[in-house]
Amino acid sequence: AGPGRAMRAAALAVALAVTAVALAVAAWRRTRPVREVLFFPSRPCCIEGLLAEAAEPGVPARPCPCPLPSGDTALSRLVRRLLSARRSLDLCLFCFSCPQLGRAVQLLHRRGVRVRLVTDAQYMGLHGSQIGRLRHAGIQVRHDQHSGYMHHKFAIVDQRTLITGSLNWTSQAIQSNRENVLVVEDAEYVKAFQDEFERIWEEYNPANYSFF
Amino acid sequence: AGPGRAMRAAALAVALAVTAVALAVAAWRRTRPVREVLFFPSRPCCIEGLLAEAAEPGVPARPCPCPLPSGDTALSRLVRRLLSARRSLDLCLFCFSCPQLGRAVQLLHRRGVRVRLVTDAQYMGLHGSQIGRLRHAGIQVRHDQHSGYMHHKFAIVDQRTLITGSLNWTSQAIQSNRENVLVVEDAEYVKAFQDEFERIWEEYNPANYSFF
Repeated sequence: AGPGRAMRAAALAVALAVTAVALAVAAWRRTRPVREVLFFPSRPCCIEGLLAEAAEPGVPARPCPCPLPSGDTALSRLVRRLLSARRSLDLCLFCFSCPQLGRAVQLLHRRGVRVRLVTDAQYMGLHGSQIGRLRHAGIQVRHDQHSGYMHHKFAIVDQRTLITGSLNWTSQAIQSNRENVLVVEDAEYVKAFQDEFERIWEEYNPANYSFF
Repeated sequence: AGPGRAMRAAALAVALAVTAVALAVAAWRRTRPVREVLFFPSRPCCIEGLLAEAAEPGVPARPCPCPLPSGDTALSRLVRRLLSARRSLDLCLFCFSCPQLGRAVQLLHRRGVRVRLVTDAQYMGLHGSQIGRLRHAGIQVRHDQHSGYMHHKFAIVDQRTLITGSLNWTSQAIQSNRENVLVVEDAEYVKAFQDEFERIWEEYNPANYSFF
């Protein structure tokens, strides 16, 4: 019985080790962070369905009468990522004039998501800028007072998903330019950008203004 | 001796399993891709030492007489990453007017690194643009013929390290703007950008020009 028991014990130990490795691999796969790249220009698309679904989840959206297709595009993917916010959306944007993205952000604000927006003082007044509308809707906006541009173009969803790249949030950029956007969940990148956001947010706190 | 042998066999199996896991962890750590974020504006800095070291590795560089410090800055880190290229450097840049980065790229070209550059047709003629110098030095440059901007600002070192973000390669952006640059080695991101580069490179192949 000696060799038999030894074999059984060894087989059991190996089986346990194999199970442990399999579980570790499964855990790694499950928590594997999202990695996505979006390239622009995006095909034009209708995002009414996405907005309606986000406004009233589960309620079938009425078909939109506009002639645009509602397919899977770089823009629709970007909008989907933004609309996934449940708690917070931190935006750090050189310029923001795309009405579709403006509506998505307003919807999140109405849904109770805490939206904070930092933008560039010179570009916030550009033709078609969404900043006035967003402020009007009650969204907190801060802007810099420096001579250099606040040239970031990133968003952080729920302090967990970083959306960053070359894309300014303008219709021209979305529809006409070659642009890239990375969707990143790796904690190291996200933390670096979240810290940068908090630094800028505090630096441009109106309570610290000294010019009036 | 039966229980003793069983215990020994089990202990051996466990020891093997532990060793296997330790080796796997070590392998994972060793191949763990670089993840770095650079924020700008960068403190001004002298990169002469970096360029000299890259031009003649091992030869002590003569101290630069300029008054700038040669410390660790966002710019020096960016330059270091570029100068690490051994085989190839693919550049996809909306505008390129920073003389320091221009010198780094020229040095790589002289050292035998295959440099390819895609840029924006409208912005390549901007005041201070490095594009003319780079072409003069023999570096292959292609530019788009579309109305939208070629607004990417990324570099790929040795088809392995992606350097991308909001930063245009201008002294103004480096010294004055709030900007971000990600250094990425995750294969998924790198492949997506390399494919985008090859697409644009081929699309703007002068052999396909139809306007003359």
